[in-house]
Amino acid sequence: MTWKLTKSELDNQNLLIDESLLSLGNGYLGVRGNFEEGYTSGYKSIRGTYINAFHDQTEITYGEKLYAFPETQQKLVNVIDGQDINIYLDNELFSLFEGNVISFERHLHLDAGYSERIIHWESPNGKEVKLHFRRFVSFVTRELFAIDVKIEAIKNVDKVKIVSRVNGDVSNFVDKGDPRVASGHAKRLHVSEVEKINGYSVVKDTTYVTNLEVACVTSTQIVAGEHSYTHDVVDDSVVEEYVCDGKDSIQFTKYNVYTDTLRHEEQIVEHAIAILDNISKKPFEELLAAHKLYLDDFWATSDIKIDGDDELQEGLRFNLYQLLQSVGKDPVSNIAAKGLSGEGYEGHYFWDTEIYIFPVFLMTNPEIAKNLLMHRYSILDSARERAQEMGHKKGALFPWRTITGPESSAFFPAGTAQYHISADIAYSYIQYYLVTKDEEFLRNYMAEVLFETARLWIDTGHMTDGQFRIDEVTGPDEYTCLVNNNYYTNAMAKYNLLWAEKVYQQLKEVDSDSLNVLAERIGLAHEEATEWKNAGENMYLPYDKKLKINAQDDSFLQKDRWDLENTPEDKFPLLLNYHPLTLYRYQVCKQADTVLAHFLLEDEQNEETIRNSYNYYEEITTHDSSLSYCVFSIIGSKLGYNEKAYRYFNETARLDLDNTHGNTKDGLHMANMGGTWLAIVYGFAGLRIKETGISLRPSLPEKWNSLSFHLQYQGRLLRITMDKENVTYVIENGDSLTIQHHEESVELEQGKPVKLSINK
Amino acid sequence: MTWKLTKSELDNQNLLIDESLLSLGNGYLGVRGNFEEGYTSGYKSIRGTYINAFHDQTEITYGEKLYAFPETQQKLVNVIDGQDINIYLDNELFSLFEGNVISFERHLHLDAGYSERIIHWESPNGKEVKLHFRRFVSFVTRELFAIDVKIEAIKNVDKVKIVSRVNGDVSNFVDKGDPRVASGHAKRLHVSEVEKINGYSVVKDTTYVTNLEVACVTSTQIVAGEHSYTHDVVDDSVVEEYVCDGKDSIQFTKYNVYTDTLRHEEQIVEHAIAILDNISKKPFEELLAAHKLYLDDFWATSDIKIDGDDELQEGLRFNLYQLLQSVGKDPVSNIAAKGLSGEGYEGHYFWDTEIYIFPVFLMTNPEIAKNLLMHRYSILDSARERAQEMGHKKGALFPWRTITGPESSAFFPAGTAQYHISADIAYSYIQYYLVTKDEEFLRNYMAEVLFETARLWIDTGHMTDGQFRIDEVTGPDEYTCLVNNNYYTNAMAKYNLLWAEKVYQQLKEVDSDSLNVLAERIGLAHEEATEWKNAGENMYLPYDKKLKINAQDDSFLQKDRWDLENTPEDKFPLLLNYHPLTLYRYQVCKQADTVLAHFLLEDEQNEETIRNSYNYYEEITTHDSSLSYCVFSIIGSKLGYNEKAYRYFNETARLDLDNTHGNTKDGLHMANMGGTWLAIVYGFAGLRIKETGISLRPSLPEKWNSLSFHLQYQGRLLRITMDKENVTYVIENGDSLTIQHHEESVELEQGKPVKLSINK
Repeated sequence: MTWKLTKSELDNQNLLIDESLLSLGNGYLGVRGNFEEGYTSGYKSIRGTYINAFHDQTEITYGEKLYAFPETQQKLVNVIDGQDINIYLDNELFSLFEGNVISFERHLHLDAGYSERIIHWESPNGKEVKLHFRRFVSFVTRELFAIDVKIEAIKNVDKVKIVSRVNGDVSNFVDKGDPRVASGHAKRLHVSEVEKINGYSVVKDTTYVTNLEVACVTSTQIVAGEHSYTHDVVDDSVVEEYVCDGKDSIQFTKYNVYTDTLRHEEQIVEHAIAILDNISKKPFEELLAAHKLYLDDFWATSDIKIDGDDELQEGLRFNLYQLLQSVGKDPVSNIAAKGLSGEGYEGHYFWDTEIYIFPVFLMTNPEIAKNLLMHRYSILDSARERAQEMGHKKGALFPWRTITGPESSAFFPAGTAQYHISADIAYSYIQYYLVTKDEEFLRNYMAEVLFETARLWIDTGHMTDGQFRIDEVTGPDEYTCLVNNNYYTNAMAKYNLLWAEKVYQQLKEVDSDSLNVLAERIGLAHEEATEWKNAGENMYLPYDKKLKINAQDDSFLQKDRWDLENTPEDKFPLLLNYHPLTLYRYQVCKQADTVLAHFLLEDEQNEETIRNSYNYYEEITTHDSSLSYCVFSIIGSKLGYNEKAYRYFNETARLDLDNTHGNTKDGLHMANMGGTWLAIVYGFAGLRIKETGISLRPSLPEKWNSLSFHLQYQGRLLRITMDKENVTYVIENGDSLTIQHHEESVELEQGKPVKLSINK
Repeated sequence: MTWKLTKSELDNQNLLIDESLLSLGNGYLGVRGNFEEGYTSGYKSIRGTYINAFHDQTEITYGEKLYAFPETQQKLVNVIDGQDINIYLDNELFSLFEGNVISFERHLHLDAGYSERIIHWESPNGKEVKLHFRRFVSFVTRELFAIDVKIEAIKNVDKVKIVSRVNGDVSNFVDKGDPRVASGHAKRLHVSEVEKINGYSVVKDTTYVTNLEVACVTSTQIVAGEHSYTHDVVDDSVVEEYVCDGKDSIQFTKYNVYTDTLRHEEQIVEHAIAILDNISKKPFEELLAAHKLYLDDFWATSDIKIDGDDELQEGLRFNLYQLLQSVGKDPVSNIAAKGLSGEGYEGHYFWDTEIYIFPVFLMTNPEIAKNLLMHRYSILDSARERAQEMGHKKGALFPWRTITGPESSAFFPAGTAQYHISADIAYSYIQYYLVTKDEEFLRNYMAEVLFETARLWIDTGHMTDGQFRIDEVTGPDEYTCLVNNNYYTNAMAKYNLLWAEKVYQQLKEVDSDSLNVLAERIGLAHEEATEWKNAGENMYLPYDKKLKINAQDDSFLQKDRWDLENTPEDKFPLLLNYHPLTLYRYQVCKQADTVLAHFLLEDEQNEETIRNSYNYYEEITTHDSSLSYCVFSIIGSKLGYNEKAYRYFNETARLDLDNTHGNTKDGLHMANMGGTWLAIVYGFAGLRIKETGISLRPSLPEKWNSLSFHLQYQGRLLRITMDKENVTYVIENGDSLTIQHHEESVELEQGKPVKLSINK
């Protein structure tokens, strides 16, 4: 079954991974797949509930702190624990690590959007019970995290006691092996309110530094025979206790409603109570059904169907599902590198958003894509400030990692120096415009972002001997830092500059009032647009005449090559086994860099150059970054390296499911998950979005019988179905459209499928 | 008077500076010029007593810690305070910040080697006293820090009470503005012993982490009329109290003897007592006289006499004197960047030693120079380990900053990446050999150091297209980091490699047994020497054909030029006002880099290239490093830019005396002090030491009437005297010698001065 992920491990190593894999979320709220009752002592758990963007601030300590190094870092905070439920059978506490586990299975239902645990258990004293836990984080009521437990005593059980707790005394995960986490930054919240109000458990916490508040207001219900109920406030928790007769079958539900001051203004407890008043009487099934409707809609247009490989189908759906669970859907939030599934990378937003995740939503759920752009727009002022701090006279420098805007990177060579993020953001704005033709968006947001990023390039680079050069930046590949004229950066900056000028001219022509208002507001001189054009048109893009490839940067090809063949396997990933200086000294790539530029800006080079580059860089790329495979898959497809493309795609599709990078316990690799989708749609189907419109160059992996998916494009819903011989294009909804199939123009009309040979 | 530094400031700003300027030391022990009685409340003091190399270890915290980043840092420790003396006039405590200072002067005597405070003071209640403090740190008994106070009551004084304390409760200096110091690393010692033994005060302290021990054993004596004496152990101090009659003139002496477990084995208290037993009965005058004899010897051959500028004469002597006070004279120690005069740079040893300070001692006191080399030899194993840690298969990578060997640099782009330090050390070994022809030294130490550093270059660089290239290092100029083929580094590595091969061949010829033993010990294959030669001979040295200069590195000249002209003055030094990325992005130099290579290895390039380079780099050099001026002075002299040479020399000579860099309070700039000497001897006199012998190209600064100094060379003592017309060379002691005067060969015989025209 490819709609259900099933797990039944009970060893700590796998439990930690499963906590990430079975995490639930809705973009606002996320809960890891922990056990309600916890683990046995000695087992490590990353027990976590997260609210997207809800953060505290911690000091960064440097061995040597230099000018404009960020002094503080934002950190996603593990919030109030509403998961806690303990079950006693005549005072024997249920635990999967004691007694006899007769059967145990957990599932994550990708279609219905909930997870469950089905347990048949015998206690050490011979009491037998069947337990069925279900939980979901609602796509309908984003504040809701609901748990339902069915308890059926089978043998020797007199009384069943249920102890449910809402605990405000929480910390972030601490790993003694990681000095940053152990250095006292784990505890970031203090409890500011614990009480019972109107029968609800109320816990409110406040962050130490940012003074953000979060509330969890909880109602519990029970369906059982005669039973007793008590509650109490114990330390920083509200505890409720139900004692039922062992002969009755019992259904216990727990609705946790989370509110925060980032979104719910001051009165967060009142807000949460109001929300809970609305839903607390509704049965779990009803809430879950409404939640499923949302997912039905999502899958109807966002699913990709593969006929011929269930493993990959599972990986693909799992990845799409987890992206949906993690992506922010309000302007306060974006999508963190690990989504809402773990604490890796401190809940920060990176360029992963723009290059690896945004396109998935852009082509399937453009309103979510727009929200990601609006979040970036909301931090534009921060980016302007950062540019000033970094010595620039003008422009906006987006932070390498952040939550609400300030740069949170503590190692500038692989952080702040990645100036390309500003061009990446500009690129995503342009892509959005191409796919939506949203002129209002262009006028109100896109123009400003493009202008300010273009200004950054003008101030960063310099025109020398008629060429515009950009020195001392780091490209995507973090195994080579602080270089001059990184091909990726320069090519992206060129695109940024030329589009800024284009938008400037366009606005000048069609809406000069808007332009003037904007120009006034940001102090834009009219000559600047000319500068952008000039810099863009004369952008220096390193090219090696001998190898006939684009050089990753000015000096890359002069360096010695790393001997990958003779590097022992246990030395990967290299960054954990070699000093950065050693890595920087060689031709060796952590991830796609020039090859990524060939994907995003394929018209910059002819196919021969792209092929040569691909062949060259492939040999020296370790893929130590999870952002690499999908790019090599996509360009592999483009170049007709079908087997390679398929192999790289395989690496992306199950990276977390199979924990191939070894760190899934810290959270899921969101960018890679986006990459899976990209490898199919941009890779196998060969989609490209350009000013001239939409084009595809499909080729189906040999092992598959068929592949089908939808695209959203300028208000239309398209469906593309590929089988071994043919491709069928159909507009399911929307106006007629001309697309390119290989080099051929194809007219499409709503409801009229067009079937074409898959080959050129 | 140019043998005496005089100060009489009482404002805190200047007192802090004077603490450094009037510091005393002997290379083993150093004491800052604090007031025995301390300052008034609210005044900051960096009260310090240091033992060269006596250190503790502290953790380095990184925002992001990557592989092989040093986890700990060594730190010079402020040791037991033996300075403390308080004087009461009928219970009124003497303080220069109360009452009426009728007169006050402090002097540092450069010839006699002591400092004094001469005070005429009236207390708030009208009691009048004359006080005369003298102190020195002995060059004869290195453990001794002696203080002598003469007290003469003038008016209204009944009783004089002297309270002398030895205090083990000490911390390093804390500046709240510097997070590194304030982060809890200041207190590094705990008191392990406080008692009176045989009438001596005994305090023993132990460092927290390194478990090094230091003892201060103190005897006090008084010459006075009838008086009472008591003593007590109070907390972590031993306190002694003398009460004398106000009518008598009083002489109080305090001999502090410091021992440590780095040099005195385990029984450091017994050692100190034994030393004190030997000297405690000797009068202060006698000890001081013996101490002066050492200095007489020093000045007889190390002084440089300038006729025509007292200010510069003072600066020059002060600098030489402070170098002598700070330079380590046992193999445990080297010379710290701030000597023993302050806590800046944590007491670490840098390349400053080899390039800026070692040559001074080499040419005046070769036995001290040899000790500096022996210290480096003692950390060769550490350097081999560091090379391994940095991923090298072979060789030795000397640490950028260290005390006993481990890398203590917390910012690798301007630390560990300065690989040139290994070539700098090799260079100093070669210079030592050229000046001493010490074949035993070559065999026992130099060969191994040259071989291991040569191996480092082979493993760091790579031969491509017939050229040996060295990527991803940082040269001396810290405003451009992590570059390929830094001219300085490559040129120095070339010298290192070729000399390693030369020494290899020489040993093979004359002492193949020694060579075989060494080769066996370090696993040296005989082909390696061929590799060294090959790499050295084919070393790539970047040269720009258009500008006809050596490029600082592969990419330097392609960058934009920093607009120094329009940079506001308050933005200097740039590193305190710009992010490193910004600095790296421009052609702007913190200090001499290529120009320094032109000094150390002038035969690598013809004079035209050197001239072009000088002119080019001068325009973009900020001299934000104190290591820069002297180099520009020396090469200025070489090129006949006499005015410039003189101006740069001026900057070096009084840098600390006039606190031109604004941070003299943290300690004196030792490298710059060496640079003053270099600017005269290598600059104005044009000295060069090469395999072919000694050569000079003298030119006297216009303002001066004459200049004279001595040199030690291969067992000879030479004296060089320059006046406006002539130079006189004479061998004062030693065999005949041929030297080069400008391009002319000159035969010198002992006792027979040769007078030549100063011009070519």
